[in-house]
Amino acid sequence: MKTIIIDMDDVMADASAGILDVFNELNGTDLKKDFFKDKNFYDFMNSGKYLTYRDRLFDQGFFINLEVMPDAQEVIKELSEKHKVYIVSAATEFPNSLREKYDWMQKYFPFISWRNFMLCGDKSIVKGDVMIDDHEKNLKTFSGETLLFDAMHNQQLEGYHRVYNWQEIHNYFFKN
Amino acid sequence: MKTIIIDMDDVMADASAGILDVFNELNGTDLKKDFFKDKNFYDFMNSGKYLTYRDRLFDQGFFINLEVMPDAQEVIKELSEKHKVYIVSAATEFPNSLREKYDWMQKYFPFISWRNFMLCGDKSIVKGDVMIDDHEKNLKTFSGETLLFDAMHNQQLEGYHRVYNWQEIHNYFFKN
Repeated sequence: MKTIIIDMDDVMADASAGILDVFNELNGTDLKKDFFKDKNFYDFMNSGKYLTYRDRLFDQGFFINLEVMPDAQEVIKELSEKHKVYIVSAATEFPNSLREKYDWMQKYFPFISWRNFMLCGDKSIVKGDVMIDDHEKNLKTFSGETLLFDAMHNQQLEGYHRVYNWQEIHNYFFKN
Repeated sequence: MKTIIIDMDDVMADASAGILDVFNELNGTDLKKDFFKDKNFYDFMNSGKYLTYRDRLFDQGFFINLEVMPDAQEVIKELSEKHKVYIVSAATEFPNSLREKYDWMQKYFPFISWRNFMLCGDKSIVKGDVMIDDHEKNLKTFSGETLLFDAMHNQQLEGYHRVYNWQEIHNYFFKN
């Protein structure tokens, strides 16, 4: 039995889709995730040419309306039956997200106990056997195995075991 | 520089006083903390003779109105200037507490960044050098040094370095 630390945004919840929706609405664009395959997402967003999506993350309604990632529910349920699964989400930067993330979990992952749910600022004080996350800043301070969940903002990142979807994560745990 | 994990309820915030207020209001009693010096708090509360205070913890208004423990602000400010201080609070059992605990921190500890604030279910996945907490369940899974903060519900607990107030904690870090 392993202790598995799972991130929410861009791992369980499609935050990138939500961000692109806001960005496109603000800027009159029609960007898709694939647009960032060969570009640095943050350089593009911070270039000064566009209105920023970031203010919207502080508003009510952003996090509660994110869609669940394909197969996340089924695979996390199966993982939680064989392992200790903890959902650890960076949330305290966005006070309105705290309750929304709790409610989102109740909606899509009611089988995860409140005991196994954590809202934090940074993840450097989190320990476990495996961390699944889309941000290097979280993976690099973790002492166990790490899986980088593919996201539009981490396309240039190298040196991590990259997974593209939840079926791959299923195979990682159940077919190795 | 140490990574210090500090609990909120009954360490920074006087949750016991809040609980006794609710208990006394519900039961028409006038219990003080000292009443539990020679009794097991949980045995007494769960004896079935009294209306329980626990439902109130789920309501709005309980956590935001707790008083700050004497000297906690000054000592935590000083600690945070020399060490990495993280506030880690069990909160996800009580959904209404999430935002209230965030707001309470803004009110009394505005110098603690959102980066250093964590709301969780259980603390077994938290790592650091020192943990200050009033519950054995949190201290016993911690791999670093532990300080047990004296509280009405832990009077019978032995085997931990017990501290009675924030001045003692100050001395522990700055005079050893």
